[in-house]
Amino acid sequence: MRSVDELRELVEDALAELSPVGPPGLDEAVRYALEGGGKRIRPVLCLAVGEAVGSEPEDVLPAACAVELVHSFSLVHDDLPALDDDETRRGRPSTWAQFGESVAVLAGDALLVEAFRLALSYETPAVARELAAATLGMIGGQYLDVTGSADDLAALNRLKTGRLFEASVAVALAVKDAEPQTWPRFAQEVGALFQLVDDLLDGDGHVLAHGEDETRRRADEAAERALAALAELDADTSVLRGIVDGLATRTA
Amino acid sequence: MRSVDELRELVEDALAELSPVGPPGLDEAVRYALEGGGKRIRPVLCLAVGEAVGSEPEDVLPAACAVELVHSFSLVHDDLPALDDDETRRGRPSTWAQFGESVAVLAGDALLVEAFRLALSYETPAVARELAAATLGMIGGQYLDVTGSADDLAALNRLKTGRLFEASVAVALAVKDAEPQTWPRFAQEVGALFQLVDDLLDGDGHVLAHGEDETRRRADEAAERALAALAELDADTSVLRGIVDGLATRTA
Repeated sequence: MRSVDELRELVEDALAELSPVGPPGLDEAVRYALEGGGKRIRPVLCLAVGEAVGSEPEDVLPAACAVELVHSFSLVHDDLPALDDDETRRGRPSTWAQFGESVAVLAGDALLVEAFRLALSYETPAVARELAAATLGMIGGQYLDVTGSADDLAALNRLKTGRLFEASVAVALAVKDAEPQTWPRFAQEVGALFQLVDDLLDGDGHVLAHGEDETRRRADEAAERALAALAELDADTSVLRGIVDGLATRTA
Repeated sequence: MRSVDELRELVEDALAELSPVGPPGLDEAVRYALEGGGKRIRPVLCLAVGEAVGSEPEDVLPAACAVELVHSFSLVHDDLPALDDDETRRGRPSTWAQFGESVAVLAGDALLVEAFRLALSYETPAVARELAAATLGMIGGQYLDVTGSADDLAALNRLKTGRLFEASVAVALAVKDAEPQTWPRFAQEVGALFQLVDDLLDGDGHVLAHGEDETRRRADEAAERALAALAELDADTSVLRGIVDGLATRTA
């Protein structure tokens, strides 16, 4: 089993080696968006699930990168002035602030299509189907967020954040045609854990709605339930347990 | 063989029956964008190619609709203030003018992913692969157009317009796993014909670059070459010949 750091390096290498998505200027904006120093949580999770069900990481990498590209697409579009209007992202100018709005719209579009191109490198359409369903859910979540029309914070997060975490697990299973077992439950808890800790770090979302202590308690419960789901699997889940612990205790 | 009008009606019915892509407000914007009264040239072409190679239209409809959704996605994003800044589209407010910029960005995104979802309803990933390759080319063409960085009008049009026409033909072949024969040449000429006549009707593009008479001459030549490519096929291409004639002589 490869460590989280080893898996992350595989992801970084694969992303750096992506073929150009289009003309040089568009490709530059796409690479800028992808190279923003993210933690690659989703693709690393995907590769770790893949190893747990017996796949070689190389076989899962296109699916893992596809998930990361969808994540990157969502950040590029969400940062646009018409949406969240974020001029910075991870300490650098956001894609639109660096390249202009028109290029950022198109770079986001290109990231999304390139994600499908990668997901379609498999003989089975199952990987790309998981990605399409999750991405539609995520876009729906962003719509509810931007228009302020979500009834329920948990339901919003489940769409906006959760669906792509669930896809990170689902595409790894799809590559191997592996049985779902308790994987969907694990995926859902990891997505919830990620969002709860994000809110703790940012002091928003659940923290504003329920307070810091309650949010911490819910995060710890999500982590426990994720570990319980792993414990029921007939697989070596040691790296995944480390990922859950890392998500529960992260400080950035 | 069904007539163009019959094929168009099948497309309209299938588009009207699409499942919701997300929350009601987002779905409303997506349907607004799709119901703009377009001529459905690409999906009708797709269905007609499908019939020529022996497919039932019902079997080709998801692929045909997928192409139309990609076309619709491109219009929604191209109309945005940061890109072409078009407030109207076919005599109505454009999607962003009707629903706001943020909803239009997300509606375009949703149209694109729904297109892949439809293309992924086939057992073979070939349909969705054609769509991904064409859509990346189209986005690249739009980048060259928006940034004014195209060297060559023909190359720009081949990307921005041509790639999706080529996909309209290619996905119909992919559904049936049919031999390419002279279909790619036909598709390329139909795309060129469409753009040349578009420029004649709008008085821009080729008309500005080469004058009206020369543009007309090139359009007629593209139509002739498209018909010549059809004549080499071992298939009933009567409806397709009618489509070529209709594109060459259209006045709107």
